[in-house]
Amino acid sequence: MKYEAMLRSLKGDVDQIDRHIRGNLSSRVPLINEVGNYIILAGGKRLRSLLFVLSARLCGYLGQLSHYYSTIFEYLHSATLLHDDVVDGADIRRGKAAANIEYGNQAAVLVGDFLLSKSFSQAVEIGDIRMLEVLSNTTTMMAEGEVLELVHILNLAITQEEYLQVIISKTAILFSASCHMGAIFGRADNARQQALKSYGLNLGIAFQVVDDNLDYTSNVAEFGKPVGNDLKEGKITLPLIIAMKDGTTEDKTELASLIKKRDLTETEFTRIRDLVNKTDALPKAHQIAWSYIEKAKSDLDVFPDSPEKTLFLNLASYVVERKK
Amino acid sequence: MKYEAMLRSLKGDVDQIDRHIRGNLSSRVPLINEVGNYIILAGGKRLRSLLFVLSARLCGYLGQLSHYYSTIFEYLHSATLLHDDVVDGADIRRGKAAANIEYGNQAAVLVGDFLLSKSFSQAVEIGDIRMLEVLSNTTTMMAEGEVLELVHILNLAITQEEYLQVIISKTAILFSASCHMGAIFGRADNARQQALKSYGLNLGIAFQVVDDNLDYTSNVAEFGKPVGNDLKEGKITLPLIIAMKDGTTEDKTELASLIKKRDLTETEFTRIRDLVNKTDALPKAHQIAWSYIEKAKSDLDVFPDSPEKTLFLNLASYVVERKK
Repeated sequence: MKYEAMLRSLKGDVDQIDRHIRGNLSSRVPLINEVGNYIILAGGKRLRSLLFVLSARLCGYLGQLSHYYSTIFEYLHSATLLHDDVVDGADIRRGKAAANIEYGNQAAVLVGDFLLSKSFSQAVEIGDIRMLEVLSNTTTMMAEGEVLELVHILNLAITQEEYLQVIISKTAILFSASCHMGAIFGRADNARQQALKSYGLNLGIAFQVVDDNLDYTSNVAEFGKPVGNDLKEGKITLPLIIAMKDGTTEDKTELASLIKKRDLTETEFTRIRDLVNKTDALPKAHQIAWSYIEKAKSDLDVFPDSPEKTLFLNLASYVVERKK
Repeated sequence: MKYEAMLRSLKGDVDQIDRHIRGNLSSRVPLINEVGNYIILAGGKRLRSLLFVLSARLCGYLGQLSHYYSTIFEYLHSATLLHDDVVDGADIRRGKAAANIEYGNQAAVLVGDFLLSKSFSQAVEIGDIRMLEVLSNTTTMMAEGEVLELVHILNLAITQEEYLQVIISKTAILFSASCHMGAIFGRADNARQQALKSYGLNLGIAFQVVDDNLDYTSNVAEFGKPVGNDLKEGKITLPLIIAMKDGTTEDKTELASLIKKRDLTETEFTRIRDLVNKTDALPKAHQIAWSYIEKAKSDLDVFPDSPEKTLFLNLASYVVERKK
């Protein structure tokens, strides 16, 4: 597979990130370390941490401290996963029991708070107010995005624009912050900072669109969470929005009545998937993801060609071509 | 009542704090404003915000910006209330339905996250890294305190020292941060910063000990939450710790067997209260609260006499003599 070499080339960075994730997560309360390790070490691609490290490197940073600080983003991401799973009543995360199931909602909420605070503490250590501005605006916007998503539960009238607003706030803004803060950390000039900020945003949008597609097409073994999960949680994502726009009146009526049922049977989910597929919603959504990847790539025009830039271009393609 | 004049003299500050609480809490997501206002405007003494404003003033700050920034502490406090109530499955807060009941656990968790982030955003605005250090260490420690409390649920073997560790982390550290950050904001020298940091810590310990006493002695109309609530949630607080230390073997056995029942009847709670009272645990706990208030007062020795200092001395006595 064409991305294997790229992922292999990143293994050294991922290993260093993992080492710091373990090292920095030290609380005097054993349960915090246990739940924290449970959620963070369960897997994940470390994409947000990698984007920070690689952005700093693309901007000329040659040191090793970026790996240490990159855990800011993994802790923050894990905090939102813990809270999301409580909010969604999730059963499975990354192929095993979600932390809220394993340790209870109480521990999941509180350890999420701990990880969010830890993320801030680490960012404060850097001592750069601009980075803290980006980070605090990001977490504020992420919380808004989560609430927006909650408000739109089972809202079949949600528009593509409103959907984009949700995924920008809940997902893309953190990708953007990782890249932007990496650029600041790498002492990039303003043009490069803005370029990476925008690259991260477009990459993050494409990432979430693809994630939402995978919820219709993947399987639990590959994806690490049950397929059709978004629908079970009442989340109306892009494939369905397209189907509700492009489908026949009859199909849209059937879709609407199926979706209102919360406990979908396998047969019902298959029927929804068939109705969605009749409108070519999945390739259409994929096309939209690609359009953001094209934007992300052109954001990099301010950088001269280099192996680091090539990596960013390939990473963008990988995000939209990945199968899990 | 002897504190009425003091509280009246603070009304102007409280009004300004309230105005900024409303003004600063503006999200583009209406549900956030609604839940935020629900929890924050339901009441509360604005003690944490006041401590920030008054500490800055005690250190010579004469401007008005301290009121604007004081909402950092009220937002942070409200965030923890929202998450606590989800964690505790609380029904009532400040005399009305808890936000998790009114809006659901999901909104309570996410709006809590929003308020925590908002608190950081506002602190970042000040642009002082030392203040951000204090704030992020505080929220990290608070999350640890909440988890510690969870770990000690129904732990009848909890020692007085472990109890103090919990209340320092979950409550006193925020009082301390309000005072400490007020001193930094007021450009105090290090001795005064440390004095106010310590004052806030001792005040906060006394505050929580009194709060835990009130849970045995007050009533819902005065206290704004049901009496005996801590026990219902399995929280072993100081009065019970003292009773389990000083009671007769027979009484301790009876206490232990009563406490293991989670759904206490009125009669059972009254019996627990009687057994606790037999050991004079409430006046003993009150005495401990007073000892911290004495420490808090002597922390102020570095300040020359002034009306502002007198206010801090009176505030300390008020915290331990209040009835709600």
